[in-house]
Amino acid sequence: MPAETTDFRSNDRNRQIVLKRRPHGAPVPEDFEANDGRIDAPQEGQVLMRTIYLSLDPYMRGRMNDGPSYAAPWGLGEPCQGRIVGEVVESRDSRFRPGDLAFSMGRFQQYCTVPADGVRKLDPAAAPLSTALGTLGFPGLTAYVGLANIGQPKAGETVVVSAATGAVGAVACQLAQAAGARVVGIAGGERKCAWLRDTLKLDAVIDHKVEEPGLALDRSCPEGIDVYFENVGGAWQDAAFARMRTFGRMVMCGMISGYNDTQARPGPNLVQTIVRRLRIEGFVVGDHAHRMQEFLDRAIPLLKAGRLHYLEDVVDGLEAAPAALIGLLEGRNFGKQVVKVGSDPTAS
Amino acid sequence: MPAETTDFRSNDRNRQIVLKRRPHGAPVPEDFEANDGRIDAPQEGQVLMRTIYLSLDPYMRGRMNDGPSYAAPWGLGEPCQGRIVGEVVESRDSRFRPGDLAFSMGRFQQYCTVPADGVRKLDPAAAPLSTALGTLGFPGLTAYVGLANIGQPKAGETVVVSAATGAVGAVACQLAQAAGARVVGIAGGERKCAWLRDTLKLDAVIDHKVEEPGLALDRSCPEGIDVYFENVGGAWQDAAFARMRTFGRMVMCGMISGYNDTQARPGPNLVQTIVRRLRIEGFVVGDHAHRMQEFLDRAIPLLKAGRLHYLEDVVDGLEAAPAALIGLLEGRNFGKQVVKVGSDPTAS
Repeated sequence: MPAETTDFRSNDRNRQIVLKRRPHGAPVPEDFEANDGRIDAPQEGQVLMRTIYLSLDPYMRGRMNDGPSYAAPWGLGEPCQGRIVGEVVESRDSRFRPGDLAFSMGRFQQYCTVPADGVRKLDPAAAPLSTALGTLGFPGLTAYVGLANIGQPKAGETVVVSAATGAVGAVACQLAQAAGARVVGIAGGERKCAWLRDTLKLDAVIDHKVEEPGLALDRSCPEGIDVYFENVGGAWQDAAFARMRTFGRMVMCGMISGYNDTQARPGPNLVQTIVRRLRIEGFVVGDHAHRMQEFLDRAIPLLKAGRLHYLEDVVDGLEAAPAALIGLLEGRNFGKQVVKVGSDPTAS
Repeated sequence: MPAETTDFRSNDRNRQIVLKRRPHGAPVPEDFEANDGRIDAPQEGQVLMRTIYLSLDPYMRGRMNDGPSYAAPWGLGEPCQGRIVGEVVESRDSRFRPGDLAFSMGRFQQYCTVPADGVRKLDPAAAPLSTALGTLGFPGLTAYVGLANIGQPKAGETVVVSAATGAVGAVACQLAQAAGARVVGIAGGERKCAWLRDTLKLDAVIDHKVEEPGLALDRSCPEGIDVYFENVGGAWQDAAFARMRTFGRMVMCGMISGYNDTQARPGPNLVQTIVRRLRIEGFVVGDHAHRMQEFLDRAIPLLKAGRLHYLEDVVDGLEAAPAALIGLLEGRNFGKQVVKVGSDPTAS
């Protein structure tokens, strides 16, 4: 056995959350189950990590289904997959050693054995560890890629972001502000709206729980919308589409309001894409993972300068993950949804 | 009076077609009226043209309405606007002289007085004059721009073109073939399908009058669709959207099947733009008029080499224009719809 092997495996307990059955419509707690699994000893080229933070993300709803999508379905009876921040406890790869703090795709587990090639070391001095799952992680990269490739906001243009306090939306708002755009955020409830108004200082804020889509967008975007950064779908998408300006861009990032639907509702008649020369384009951040460093090179200085605010909604303990994921799909989270699975050695 | 003034104005008769009332739904002959108007003497910088060919195009349906669109509504009681090929009979611009054959935006009139800046001289040796309204005109440029900017077909990809025998569609098919794509054409009726099969030698042909959209596309595109060049809309659009491959592009050029609708039918749920990273983009050729020469530099050699086939549906006499335009909106034309308004000095 390698010298760095520790004895944590002696108790052989690896708490995990598995998908017990595939939800029909909205997932319920009974679709999940907490088990004790085993800890897999890392093989050559693998790293064993103790999970500190687990990321919960809207795309996970798609992985609960058994249909083809851009990410493979979660296996029934298997621990759910998700991105994690953790501490390396055993390494069979020369790039990592015990005590390293790192990011990886992992599972809803206390311990994850993962390929070292997918592990990225984190510098706790740069930013709190949990941000690697949100603002400085794939959600942040999602906002960056969506705006860089599709939205391309210009100074003075009007950018509307739905789910604007979400992990992706909040970064999209701030990157659009940095580009000089006029930014309008849509969020649900006064607490979220207050944050958009007071902390992000958006140009206009819409509370989708109390406002009517058409009226609210007419009020906040009197000249129409140049870029709609779509995280939600539904009636707000229809209303935004109807208000897109000529040469407008719809960044299709997510449509969380429909993820629990069992039947797809129709979308807008597309003739207006011609009349108004609109571009509607979807993307999946996984296709752009190679741009993470490019994104971080821009985002970390902004964050350190206090110009990239973030919200995190951290629930405690792995067994809180199913309820938190269900809540996320209903918009009950306030900021990036994270599960704290184990102790964070860098937290004060 | 300038020396080049001729005496044709002495009879002062300028047959014209005016829009009498705005159609609700499908236009009917009674929405139009034939009048005798006057011939306007050209002012400095203008050219007076005798109309030889008048172009009828699907976008004209939008101009019959009184709503905002990318082209201004036709005025009630005014001669309808349209692109023409004609002969210069009087010129107040040094670039043109009587006898020149030229293309311009004009009106449904025997004589059109137009700004010289919008007139483009035609070389009758390059191609038949009427092609300047179709394959070598804005419809051809439409196909070119849509594929160059949005469709971007690659060798081996599957490109589906709706209204494939239309003025735009036929060029789109052949440019996609030239790019090495596998091309599937959709058209209505055996005569059109035979032309696509026998003359264009497309890889697959669908008769939308007898085939069911989903089954027909499954049969002809077993691996899905990379580029859908949309001229039609409706159930075929839904079926094509559902079969778009990952990273597919929908070139939104026209949706003629809905132009007579009084209420917009819904479109596809857009979540699949995310799952399959689709790009749906509309365009209007008028924004790209500056690329006409670039297009012609490619198209004229192809045409001369017999590698750019075209179909024209020429009706005779200005007064045939309303019925031909009504028929065009119902897909009754067989190829580019042109009205022969006056004698063509180059025709054999």
